Amino acid sequence: MDEATTRTERYEHGRALFDAVSGPTGAAGIDALADVSPELEHQVSAWAYGEIYARPGLEPRDRQLVTLGMLTALGGCEPQLEIHVNAALDAGLTPPEVVEALLQSAVYCGFPRAINATTVAKKVFGERGLLPVAAV
Amino acid sequence: MDEATTRTERYEHGRALFDAVSGPTGAAGIDALADVSPELEHQVSAWAYGEIYARPGLEPRDRQLVTLGMLTALGGCEPQLEIHVNAALDAGLTPPEVVEALLQSAVYCGFPRAINATTVAKKVFGERGLLPVAAV
Amino acid sequence: MDEATTRTERYEHGRALFDAVSGPTGAAGIDALADVSPELEHQVSAWAYGEIYARPGLEPRDRQLVTLGMLTALGGCEPQLEIHVNAALDAGLTPPEVVEALLQSAVYCGFPRAINATTVAKKVFGERGLLPVAAV
Amino acid sequence: MDEATTRTERYEHGRALFDAVSGPTGAAGIDALADVSPELEHQVSAWAYGEIYARPGLEPRDRQLVTLGMLTALGGCEPQLEIHVNAALDAGLTPPEVVEALLQSAVYCGFPRAINATTVAKKVFGERGLLPVAAV
Amino acid sequence: MDEATTRTERYEHGRALFDAVSGPTGAAGIDALADVSPELEHQVSAWAYGEIYARPGLEPRDRQLVTLGMLTALGGCEPQLEIHVNAALDAGLTPPEVVEALLQSAVYCGFPRAINATTVAKKVFGERGLLPVAAV
Amino acid sequence: MDEATTRTERYEHGRALFDAVSGPTGAAGIDALADVSPELEHQVSAWAYGEIYARPGLEPRDRQLVTLGMLTALGGCEPQLEIHVNAALDAGLTPPEVVEALLQSAVYCGFPRAINATTVAKKVFGERGLLPVAAV
Repeated sequence: MDEATTRTERYEHGRALFDAVSGPTGAAGIDALADVSPELEHQVSAWAYGEIYARPGLEPRDRQLVTLGMLTALGGCEPQLEIHVNAALDAGLTPPEVVEALLQSAVYCGFPRAINATTVAKKVFGERGLLPVAAV
Repeated sequence: MDEATTRTERYEHGRALFDAVSGPTGAAGIDALADVSPELEHQVSAWAYGEIYARPGLEPRDRQLVTLGMLTALGGCEPQLEIHVNAALDAGLTPPEVVEALLQSAVYCGFPRAINATTVAKKVFGERGLLPVAAV
Repeated sequence: MDEATTRTERYEHGRALFDAVSGPTGAAGIDALADVSPELEHQVSAWAYGEIYARPGLEPRDRQLVTLGMLTALGGCEPQLEIHVNAALDAGLTPPEVVEALLQSAVYCGFPRAINATTVAKKVFGERGLLPVAAV
Repeated sequence: MDEATTRTERYEHGRALFDAVSGPTGAAGIDALADVSPELEHQVSAWAYGEIYARPGLEPRDRQLVTLGMLTALGGCEPQLEIHVNAALDAGLTPPEVVEALLQSAVYCGFPRAINATTVAKKVFGERGLLPVAAV
Repeated sequence: MDEATTRTERYEHGRALFDAVSGPTGAAGIDALADVSPELEHQVSAWAYGEIYARPGLEPRDRQLVTLGMLTALGGCEPQLEIHVNAALDAGLTPPEVVEALLQSAVYCGFPRAINATTVAKKVFGERGLLPVAAV
Repeated sequence: MDEATTRTERYEHGRALFDAVSGPTGAAGIDALADVSPELEHQVSAWAYGEIYARPGLEPRDRQLVTLGMLTALGGCEPQLEIHVNAALDAGLTPPEVVEALLQSAVYCGFPRAINATTVAKKVFGERGLLPVAAV
């Protein structure tokens, strides 16, 4: 973004990126915020996507790897994990790579978090016709 | 409370406060504990409300602000958050203030926790006919 | 296990223990992983049960006490907690002991985690015809 | 802020607010980020303070109450808690109110988190000559 | 405790138990709270120990097992873990049992939490002349 | 690894990989466990590295990205984060990529976790003569 932008431009820039990355499930999720916290909906787009995700320093697939790790570790973020498993696939990660990343989370976060996250991945893979995932 | 009280008096004092603060949803929640952990049901009322919440050092609305912050940060506390969004409104916080507090949680806890908490607030506001919340 | 074992032997040894400890709900849970993350399903059995749980240094009932504490503290592990409340009863802990352990979690993890865990215990106890639990 | 601002203006606006709220300890903290993650230092000021904290919907003292609750619940945020106990006092909360907020955290987060946070408050109060805090 | 007790009696009863369980390190820890949050110091003794820990439904060694699990899972509770590793030994758990409980935490909480907790145990064991712990 | 291996072979295989990935700081960390929990030291090498990290399904640099995300989100894992910032650099991630991954954590975990993790990265970068990191 240029140095001088309007708040509206920042939102539109970020929202376009958000929609491209997060797909219809993601869009429905933040649109649902509009009548309760319009500023939160604004900031997800304008800041989280427009200012941070849009930065050139890390490839989209790499951002999704970090994000899968964070959401798995936090726990209780199943709705966000569903969006980001989809986003990870769209960014070029393969189903076995996603599964492997979540397997690795067992080492750092323990099996319950790894199993809960893998269960979300299974749902997404099933919806996209990607099951079964081949064993490595 | 006076220095000398019976366990029963402490419970009754706390339970009356709990009911006034937490409303019917809260009451149903702890009544459901009575056949599995009567002591837990006792202590929510007698201690958490009768001894801590009842203390004069912090206004009820201020206690709810702290509590909204804690429940959002903990994650996985949606049932408790529902009770406390209601309690926050009953204690005098306005819907925009609640929404703003949860927006601020994005800074400290990240967007997933903020979005999950705001989704609970939306449910409560909807039930109370308080949607849409005006943008600030 | 002997020093030299095959990967298959380690799995079979662990899976037998897993099935004995976790019962049909647990088995359904990890079988559901087989088409998305066969290695995760393998490692729950072969490692978590076959190598760690199977060790002689701590009695099964004691392992369940530690595990109830961890799952309650983590939050968001209700599916795992359901398996382990069952496992705790099967390992010889009484319903009042389970309830007391979860009551104690209020001291260390706060009431929301304690209430959420006790709600899971109530579900399990109800399914096993163990309600009401007598007050101590 | 007006609709159209430059990135530099947004930073300067936010940084001034950050400095006013967080004091020299806070300033030293984010200045230390400048050689490793200049964008993180930028965003703390430009976004967290300039865009969120600066919003009119919630009084500064109320923001600090929410923040004390969040930082206590998260755990492992002692450096940030130290800044915010100072900020809470500067925003008009009294030492007994801060102490009471942290006491309440025992109910929702358990005693270890409450004790760790209160220990940070003790350090700050001591540095400001505010000990002992009178019992309520 | 009888039905009717004074607040002072409840404190004295709980504090005696706290001192017996937590030893001089624990005592120093809560005494340090007295000038900042006398009510927190009161409630650790009067409630956490006097009302919960003192209950007959679970053996002291079993309470320590649950507590070791919770403190390990929470993370950032090293001071409390140090007190409870000591308390666990005093309650009759052997060093290999404590070590085994913390090893099991790797399965549920991941290796970083398990390693951090085991490092605390090593410190306590070293102070008590209990190193090395024999491999099982 | 072949199907049939001895426990000793599994350890040696994993420990060699652990040493290559984690360097002298990591090695010192797990060697310190040997006199308190030899089995934990064994499992870090034999299982976490020998069985999980060694799997071919995800590149080492990708595993480090996931791990940086998890350790940042967990909080209280500074010792492990120090090892993995080093490992991330050794696996081919550049300092700006590490910094960018940690910046992104502000979106999902909040600023305190992002700042604490970035502070660890600063320490590691300083020790390796990599400061200042250029702004992207």
